[in-house]
Amino acid sequence: MAIQQCAALNPIPTIIKVDLKKPYHEQPGLHTRWHPEIPFYCKVKPGEVFKVECFDSSGGQVFNTDDADDIKNVNPMGIHCLSGPIEVDGAEPGDLLVMEIQDVQPFPDEPWGYTAIMDPAKSSAFLGDIYPNMQKAIWDFNGIFASSRHIPHVKFPGFIHPGIVGTLPSYEMMNIWKERESKLVEFHASINTPHTVAALPNPEGAYAGQAVSPELAKKIAEEGVRTVPPREHGGNIDIKNLSRGAKAYLPVYVKGAGFSVGDIHFSEGDGEISFCGAIEMHGIITLKLGLIKNGMKDLSIYNPVFLPGPVEAHYGPSRYLTFQGISVDESGKQHFLDAKVAFRQAVLNAIEYLKKFGYSGEQAYLLLSAAPVETHISSIVDIPNSCVSYSIPADIFDFDIMPKEGGPTRQGDMGSTAK
Amino acid sequence: MAIQQCAALNPIPTIIKVDLKKPYHEQPGLHTRWHPEIPFYCKVKPGEVFKVECFDSSGGQVFNTDDADDIKNVNPMGIHCLSGPIEVDGAEPGDLLVMEIQDVQPFPDEPWGYTAIMDPAKSSAFLGDIYPNMQKAIWDFNGIFASSRHIPHVKFPGFIHPGIVGTLPSYEMMNIWKERESKLVEFHASINTPHTVAALPNPEGAYAGQAVSPELAKKIAEEGVRTVPPREHGGNIDIKNLSRGAKAYLPVYVKGAGFSVGDIHFSEGDGEISFCGAIEMHGIITLKLGLIKNGMKDLSIYNPVFLPGPVEAHYGPSRYLTFQGISVDESGKQHFLDAKVAFRQAVLNAIEYLKKFGYSGEQAYLLLSAAPVETHISSIVDIPNSCVSYSIPADIFDFDIMPKEGGPTRQGDMGSTAK
Amino acid sequence: MAIQQCAALNPIPTIIKVDLKKPYHEQPGLHTRWHPEIPFYCKVKPGEVFKVECFDSSGGQVFNTDDADDIKNVNPMGIHCLSGPIEVDGAEPGDLLVMEIQDVQPFPDEPWGYTAIMDPAKSSAFLGDIYPNMQKAIWDFNGIFASSRHIPHVKFPGFIHPGIVGTLPSYEMMNIWKERESKLVEFHASINTPHTVAALPNPEGAYAGQAVSPELAKKIAEEGVRTVPPREHGGNIDIKNLSRGAKAYLPVYVKGAGFSVGDIHFSEGDGEISFCGAIEMHGIITLKLGLIKNGMKDLSIYNPVFLPGPVEAHYGPSRYLTFQGISVDESGKQHFLDAKVAFRQAVLNAIEYLKKFGYSGEQAYLLLSAAPVETHISSIVDIPNSCVSYSIPADIFDFDIMPKEGGPTRQGDMGSTAK
Amino acid sequence: MAIQQCAALNPIPTIIKVDLKKPYHEQPGLHTRWHPEIPFYCKVKPGEVFKVECFDSSGGQVFNTDDADDIKNVNPMGIHCLSGPIEVDGAEPGDLLVMEIQDVQPFPDEPWGYTAIMDPAKSSAFLGDIYPNMQKAIWDFNGIFASSRHIPHVKFPGFIHPGIVGTLPSYEMMNIWKERESKLVEFHASINTPHTVAALPNPEGAYAGQAVSPELAKKIAEEGVRTVPPREHGGNIDIKNLSRGAKAYLPVYVKGAGFSVGDIHFSEGDGEISFCGAIEMHGIITLKLGLIKNGMKDLSIYNPVFLPGPVEAHYGPSRYLTFQGISVDESGKQHFLDAKVAFRQAVLNAIEYLKKFGYSGEQAYLLLSAAPVETHISSIVDIPNSCVSYSIPADIFDFDIMPKEGGPTRQGDMGSTAK
Repeated sequence: MAIQQCAALNPIPTIIKVDLKKPYHEQPGLHTRWHPEIPFYCKVKPGEVFKVECFDSSGGQVFNTDDADDIKNVNPMGIHCLSGPIEVDGAEPGDLLVMEIQDVQPFPDEPWGYTAIMDPAKSSAFLGDIYPNMQKAIWDFNGIFASSRHIPHVKFPGFIHPGIVGTLPSYEMMNIWKERESKLVEFHASINTPHTVAALPNPEGAYAGQAVSPELAKKIAEEGVRTVPPREHGGNIDIKNLSRGAKAYLPVYVKGAGFSVGDIHFSEGDGEISFCGAIEMHGIITLKLGLIKNGMKDLSIYNPVFLPGPVEAHYGPSRYLTFQGISVDESGKQHFLDAKVAFRQAVLNAIEYLKKFGYSGEQAYLLLSAAPVETHISSIVDIPNSCVSYSIPADIFDFDIMPKEGGPTRQGDMGSTAK
Repeated sequence: MAIQQCAALNPIPTIIKVDLKKPYHEQPGLHTRWHPEIPFYCKVKPGEVFKVECFDSSGGQVFNTDDADDIKNVNPMGIHCLSGPIEVDGAEPGDLLVMEIQDVQPFPDEPWGYTAIMDPAKSSAFLGDIYPNMQKAIWDFNGIFASSRHIPHVKFPGFIHPGIVGTLPSYEMMNIWKERESKLVEFHASINTPHTVAALPNPEGAYAGQAVSPELAKKIAEEGVRTVPPREHGGNIDIKNLSRGAKAYLPVYVKGAGFSVGDIHFSEGDGEISFCGAIEMHGIITLKLGLIKNGMKDLSIYNPVFLPGPVEAHYGPSRYLTFQGISVDESGKQHFLDAKVAFRQAVLNAIEYLKKFGYSGEQAYLLLSAAPVETHISSIVDIPNSCVSYSIPADIFDFDIMPKEGGPTRQGDMGSTAK
Repeated sequence: MAIQQCAALNPIPTIIKVDLKKPYHEQPGLHTRWHPEIPFYCKVKPGEVFKVECFDSSGGQVFNTDDADDIKNVNPMGIHCLSGPIEVDGAEPGDLLVMEIQDVQPFPDEPWGYTAIMDPAKSSAFLGDIYPNMQKAIWDFNGIFASSRHIPHVKFPGFIHPGIVGTLPSYEMMNIWKERESKLVEFHASINTPHTVAALPNPEGAYAGQAVSPELAKKIAEEGVRTVPPREHGGNIDIKNLSRGAKAYLPVYVKGAGFSVGDIHFSEGDGEISFCGAIEMHGIITLKLGLIKNGMKDLSIYNPVFLPGPVEAHYGPSRYLTFQGISVDESGKQHFLDAKVAFRQAVLNAIEYLKKFGYSGEQAYLLLSAAPVETHISSIVDIPNSCVSYSIPADIFDFDIMPKEGGPTRQGDMGSTAK
Repeated sequence: MAIQQCAALNPIPTIIKVDLKKPYHEQPGLHTRWHPEIPFYCKVKPGEVFKVECFDSSGGQVFNTDDADDIKNVNPMGIHCLSGPIEVDGAEPGDLLVMEIQDVQPFPDEPWGYTAIMDPAKSSAFLGDIYPNMQKAIWDFNGIFASSRHIPHVKFPGFIHPGIVGTLPSYEMMNIWKERESKLVEFHASINTPHTVAALPNPEGAYAGQAVSPELAKKIAEEGVRTVPPREHGGNIDIKNLSRGAKAYLPVYVKGAGFSVGDIHFSEGDGEISFCGAIEMHGIITLKLGLIKNGMKDLSIYNPVFLPGPVEAHYGPSRYLTFQGISVDESGKQHFLDAKVAFRQAVLNAIEYLKKFGYSGEQAYLLLSAAPVETHISSIVDIPNSCVSYSIPADIFDFDIMPKEGGPTRQGDMGSTAK
């Protein structure tokens, strides 16, 4: 297949375009698996600036509606719909790919996104056992701000970012991933864990974009690893701070690097706790790619390293109402320095507090998934409890959430999530 | 025992004084266990401002020297040496105690502190298996800045805070703590876990300050819970952001609340990773205590909630070099959404990077324990990997730590930790 | 003339569109003077969100070229080209118009802007006597960042904002403005001030958009006040902090308010020192307008009041290299608490410092006009000197600008401004 | 006179001590004029860290009382009482002295300060014509926070700094200062300016510390320049941002530099508008001094340059309620790009707004002098108006100051300044 040469002209060229009205799996430049042989869709030179259009993570399976029928029908095998891979001229295994995010924007005609509670049987929703019902909230974007008709009294500026950035793995790397994840699945099967613990390769929903030969498409579908977790190449890192102006250093495993991007979020709280927990949206990302030759070994960088961008929302440290959680679960059972249990307790404490103002548990859960909340592992050595702190910016609410004598002032009609 | 009434005059009164040259267990106003019957040392009215002097967490067992003999000889049973308990006039079970930190300072004549790697057999040092040797670094305080003769080329302003703030537990609460921690110890004994998982009550090193009757002192020593972990009343929360100007809301379990404070840190990195991992110091804290009557139920606050103070060091978001870790341990084993494993990997990635500049592993470990590094649980749902990000402010170094073509510039003689 | 009703639908409607390829004075919805009788172009309801397209301040007289011929030919009478006026349903004299900036963006196909030194005879360029030659720098926008082929080694995120926001004056207010400015011109004529001190009404270049009757157009052209200065209604306030997310409270003088906006800047340094001193650009602004009924009297607000937005670039306070100036001019003459003289000295001190790295004076002048530099009037009472501080963020340069033993490292070929 | 050698030991040595109970002019190490021949009081080596104790600017003429009798009796000739001069080993004319502020603190037993409106005939109080009555407010320091019994409902963390840092002038430099200031006085005498425009040399109140010979003391008293304004050597710069952690680069004019410091402020608003407008206090500063040899010429630095410290209070940009002022004075007269007039209008606008909540004009004036308000010269080219913005952090009030429908909620009894 001939590779389209993408020159960065003025205005900034869009090197991958998507048609949001057409099924993603009929369009080139998109793919849903990681595999060394996914053909490059186009090529850039180091230092060029270009735009890439992206579907939302679901590839268009969710709509701006007031019910959750779409959420109930989502096919998780088709997730994530990524744009790429892009060949980087001169990239070789052992290099570091230096990615600079110049901008991320919604499509001008699609100023909306969604946050959803997925089917707990098919996902790892953090509070799936407590909030098992599939629901969603739609967010409207008014410029830099998001607000929701399903979660009233809250408005915040987006901390917009791609959930997924990554390079193509080598066979060697891909096989390491498959082996360790298979072992985990086997172990959990042996102890009858009742939920999914990893997403192993599965040809259903696999799409390899411009993989024109049916043989290659089949090979990629069968062998390709799923895009669900973050791994050494980047992948689904879901770090809210990798926003506009950020720079990331990603390992290169194959000649040409094969950079892909997707899963754009208008905003996300640390943890992305409801699984589909950021504000998911279709979007356009402006990028620049560079190289540090032989950087992996020279710099001992074998996992992504990044620098956030200089532009962020700032609320003042004393405007963050901060909840704590320790490693004792809600049944009272003590765990040993378990940061995940502590995080979960901090979130549950925050949700109970917000419910006092009139929010439903699901509204609070979706809100905390999507808003710019901060989670710190404050201590991890004080046996047997880890202490995790969980900070909510008070200024995103249009009422006062600070603790006060007499208790919270209950707000009026708080509406409902989309069910 | 008569209770000394502490009036807030001008200048601000010091209601608990310590003599750093005398053993702590010969001084009143200090204690090393939590128990409902530890007698109040003094009493304040809501709204009064006062000072409290505190020993370092070890109660004076560590010195400003260039070897680690003191670290090797520390008796962990005597930890932590707390100042208190202070009775708060009018406080009753169910209230929230509103603590405002007006200031925290070192003693003017003791401008130094330490960070140490403790005996891994007796501690939960985060990287104890990799860095088992007991070592320390001494930090000198020049005003707001700390620097160390044992870790050259680095200087940072303190994010000074008490590691421990808490109220006295009721018998009911204390017994819940003891029961759940005992069960954890029993379980780990049954699976032969090779290290300590919790610090159960132990009369050795127990001290109850002004508990004048030998019977009461004995009762408290035998029944009192250890101060090692954070719990529902606060305790060893080790949250670096609870610094000058911060406000915390703490549950009250006994009449008079019984507030104690200690374990002052000049600075700490998120996680306090080397166990004795902050910059431990003797210090003086200025406080104001207030009450929200019946606040626990009215506000659904059963664990501490806090607001950081308005004054912090700021470096600009793009000055934080950020490492990532996923839930795959260094042997390559896949764990399921384990935020602690992910955190550990992020720290190890950062240490390997810093070693490229000439630091020893122990220097990097102690530095990251003590410096204002930030740890976020960025994602906790992307099976099977949690992604934890770990951000180091570049401006605390006097050389450029940013990734560059050709690799890091190795600094000259980097000296050594105190061994 | 019938007024077009503008409903805020989803997607956000653009209520004023401009054709950048057509002369602005052939398009409705644009005007170059302030006058009570400029007909409203369209109407919005309080709370609606809408977009407005704007020409650059010159109305398209400057181009993306490498010479300054366009600058030399600019007709200042046609400045500024504003979009509006927009009628606000229900607005009455005495109200406050609450403007919220939801977003500001360049046109996707016009990712560039310019900063220029204008003819000192026709302008008030701050350093016009020292740098009299007309020159410009073109800035390229790569997403949130601006850089210039005419000023190398510098890159910064935009602090994007409208230079002009304002309401239509009443006849009473307009006449006050004309009278006081005429008196100033008369006084300066009497003392032979060699430069322009105010821009009085002048029919040349006047354009009143949809003023369909020739009589009304003529009346507005003759009576309308110029748009050059800021005044009580807002106007050319040129405050860089009125950026995305900001909210302003503007006095209302006529029924319907008559809101107009323009003079979009991608970035600006405090002072906008080279007159055409921000990064001027064509742009699109997303707005929401509200009302505080009778707010002028109730709140004693007779001049604009505003709140900046929550999203800004942050560099850390210690990354701002700060110059000082006092009220002694460059000839050595002492002035009495003159903050303008002090500001000028601070800027000259900064320029001399930057020249040491190889920049020409004009490059430094244009850079400081456009980059996010901060100017504080630090003291205004210490007779006879005011002290003004002038802070440059070091991180916008790709080399180290901090003072060092041995002096600055001169950079290589620094190119040139467009002349 | 033998010079005391000051070695920086551990703990940090105090090289100038003051006795606050004794008149300052009976103590060595203090002086009230700048002159090349003031003998050094002690000597430090570059890199040493040391402490210096300082009287408040008045040298102890103001007291913690509830009337303004002390303010009415202040002798301005004795101001400022400085600590120094300190010889810096190796410093020569042409060098830059690199001063690092390690810390600034009140005396532990003197946790209070004052802000005052001075006699307008003897001062340059910014609003002296509008608020001519001598009044003061006392501030109490509770750790990092200041609050006042004379200005209720407000509390803020100090932005603590020395108002004065400077080096001894050479005779050449001193004579330039005297000549230019004399000319200003002569000119204003010729036009009958009714107030003082500069403080010329005056032996009254002159004190030269350790100037042991009566001849030298007399010479310094007669020739020495006053400390009122900032000048090329630093002096009374009154920049609030030169706080803890800041670094300044000061020109050196005499062998040994001769560094002095004083006029400590717990907090100050930009402009220090009420003349004695910061929170004046006795204090202790911890310093480190270094040298850049030949730095003046190498770096083109002939006026102080500085870097603020990394630790500041942060409120979030959108928490700053911002007033504007233009160059039209309160009589309606138009001035030409006069930043001082614009600043004054912005302050008056803010005062009128605050009065709506119940504050007296004097309370608002003193509050804005002392609190961390920010003043930017936003534009200086838009003839004939400069636009100055003036930003007040809303979070220093314990009530909501944001503009609202229905107007401000008047607070209850607002007490009074000390008169």
